[in-house]
Amino acid sequence: MVRTVRLAVIPGDGIGPEVVAEATKVLEAVTAGSDVSFEQTPFSLGAARYLETGDVLTDADLDAIKRHDAILLGAVGGVPGDPRLAGANIERGLLLKLRFELDHYVNLRPTVLYPGVTSPLANPGEVDFVVVREGTEGPYVGNGGAIRQGTPHEVANEVSVNTAYGVERVVRFAFAQAAARRKRLTLVHKTNVLVFAGSLWKRTVDAVASEFPDVAVDYLHVDAATIFLVADPARFDVIVTDNLFGDILTDLAGAISGGIGLAASGNINPDGRYPSMFEPVHGSAPDIAGKGLADPTAAIVSVALLLRHLGETDAATRVERAVAADLADRGDARRSTSEIGDAVVARLAE
Amino acid sequence: MVRTVRLAVIPGDGIGPEVVAEATKVLEAVTAGSDVSFEQTPFSLGAARYLETGDVLTDADLDAIKRHDAILLGAVGGVPGDPRLAGANIERGLLLKLRFELDHYVNLRPTVLYPGVTSPLANPGEVDFVVVREGTEGPYVGNGGAIRQGTPHEVANEVSVNTAYGVERVVRFAFAQAAARRKRLTLVHKTNVLVFAGSLWKRTVDAVASEFPDVAVDYLHVDAATIFLVADPARFDVIVTDNLFGDILTDLAGAISGGIGLAASGNINPDGRYPSMFEPVHGSAPDIAGKGLADPTAAIVSVALLLRHLGETDAATRVERAVAADLADRGDARRSTSEIGDAVVARLAE
Ligand SMILES: CC(C)[C@H](C(=O)O)[C@@H](O)C(=O)O
Ligand SMILES: CC(C)[C@H](C(=O)O)[C@@H](O)C(=O)O
Repeated sequence: MVRTVRLAVIPGDGIGPEVVAEATKVLEAVTAGSDVSFEQTPFSLGAARYLETGDVLTDADLDAIKRHDAILLGAVGGVPGDPRLAGANIERGLLLKLRFELDHYVNLRPTVLYPGVTSPLANPGEVDFVVVREGTEGPYVGNGGAIRQGTPHEVANEVSVNTAYGVERVVRFAFAQAAARRKRLTLVHKTNVLVFAGSLWKRTVDAVASEFPDVAVDYLHVDAATIFLVADPARFDVIVTDNLFGDILTDLAGAISGGIGLAASGNINPDGRYPSMFEPVHGSAPDIAGKGLADPTAAIVSVALLLRHLGETDAATRVERAVAADLADRGDARRSTSEIGDAVVARLAE
Repeated sequence: MVRTVRLAVIPGDGIGPEVVAEATKVLEAVTAGSDVSFEQTPFSLGAARYLETGDVLTDADLDAIKRHDAILLGAVGGVPGDPRLAGANIERGLLLKLRFELDHYVNLRPTVLYPGVTSPLANPGEVDFVVVREGTEGPYVGNGGAIRQGTPHEVANEVSVNTAYGVERVVRFAFAQAAARRKRLTLVHKTNVLVFAGSLWKRTVDAVASEFPDVAVDYLHVDAATIFLVADPARFDVIVTDNLFGDILTDLAGAISGGIGLAASGNINPDGRYPSMFEPVHGSAPDIAGKGLADPTAAIVSVALLLRHLGETDAATRVERAVAADLADRGDARRSTSEIGDAVVARLAE
């Protein structure tokens, strides 16, 4: 019996469509003839759609997306400074809106320095950790405001909202990840300054820790965490942190592991109530769009995360191995976006 | 005529007293026989004082400190997890309290990779930039709170407060720094998510830029800034950013330039209404305290910043050159805290 997965595909802007084309190529190849098949629905969303129609994400779009089992997203966002986009915030109105509306409370961002990949660090050591970033709270809630805007008396506030409900569920997820990995969990926050939010995070980790006696727990302030990420990244196994700190740490993590051209992420609703969304960490890079210069690896690894999330473990592992094999032999030759996709597909057969 | 500078000295906890001893040794040596002399008042503040007296910073302490021209601080903070400190927050109650009460709205953190110093980056290039971190606003204002603490319905908020008044004065300071350096200023924020605070910062930088037509301005999201700090730190000249982003970026900057054992900082009140405070970026490191293992270089460079702030440019330059010469020849030999201080003093004569 064949399992049919309804996949919403949002190629988006810039290099998004190019990398998604390679990612779906790999997805089709790895599942060809297997007992799972993907029924893809393309969604035209992003800066291009906004410029055409004035819509960022309509209720109808959102409803249609919700009727899918999972989402693959390329990248969204127009050319920085494009005056026609001044009135829209594609990031908030589309990407963050999807994460919030679909209750993607886990933003899962694995960091692996693959053999053959050059790190900017002289001695990176074995880099293999995962950041579990909270996805629906913190300073991302859109709870800011300003008074007297544009005057010398302007006050602009941003509120970080953190709830026991929201923190506990993501912390629990992170402990489960650590238990299935090297059994080490690091909470990253800034408890000495953000004392209320920090205290909630700290107490929650301490409480959930008692259910996972095998997992060693430690704590780092976010500033110190950046030092360890460059001085000793091998010390990390699972990092759990809030939405903003997770945003910052995962770009840094991408950089030390060979660039965000390789970094994949899953925006996950572990309850399964809403479709989870898989996307490269990189943006739409309009400057190199349409030239075949983009590296589709992050999008392809996102497909592996998608497959693993769906329980298609064998297919996920095959994609990961094909990517690792491709990276190991990559050398210095410049290949186009589709050449890399084709090479990964060829490796699947090995 | 001899100028007398009243200097409040706060050695603090852990390695603080050791590194301050070397820093004042260098200060005395570089000013000996010159037309400036430092009248030092020691202040016993920090975890040790709290454990003895129950006070973190009394009004009398604060008044006494205010009657000085400048402050040299080592490091404050007890042993992490010490139960006797659970009720106190030395960081908030002492360090941040001083920054806020003394209106240190510029937190100046230069980053230089000195010749002879090893960076964890394989190809750091020429690293020489300065971070101008706002010091009296943002998420550091202590404007958080929680309801239903300790229950499953807890909500913990933190408010970032940003004002036109506060942002403009630090942005103006940063532009002046850039104008006197390589004429390049990078605003770092997260305007796509923190839209109200981000908009205020962005508009302020755009407005002040018109007064500095020679300074090239660009903008980076904080996550992208961490990538550039490891991939191409030489691109930076002056970074201006908010209190929290500045905290994170300067630890990372310290790490790529050879460790925060070398990073100095000035908490500056440019108006001169209150004494400015100079301190190493590192903490009190209780694990290595009292063993002569601490590197006093960051404290010594803080003395150079102090001298420069006071207009004692020649003395500041002599300290910087002595430190640079010492670092260039340092090699692998392990030297004690006082050996390093002595070596820098010896270099002053060169
Ligand atoms: C585009 C932006 C809103 C987003 C974020 O801040 O989460 C991005 O940086 C990411 O990490 O996915
Ligand atoms: C100790 C702490 C409150 C402080 C800060 O966050 O500013 C420190 O990290 C620093 O950078 O000086």
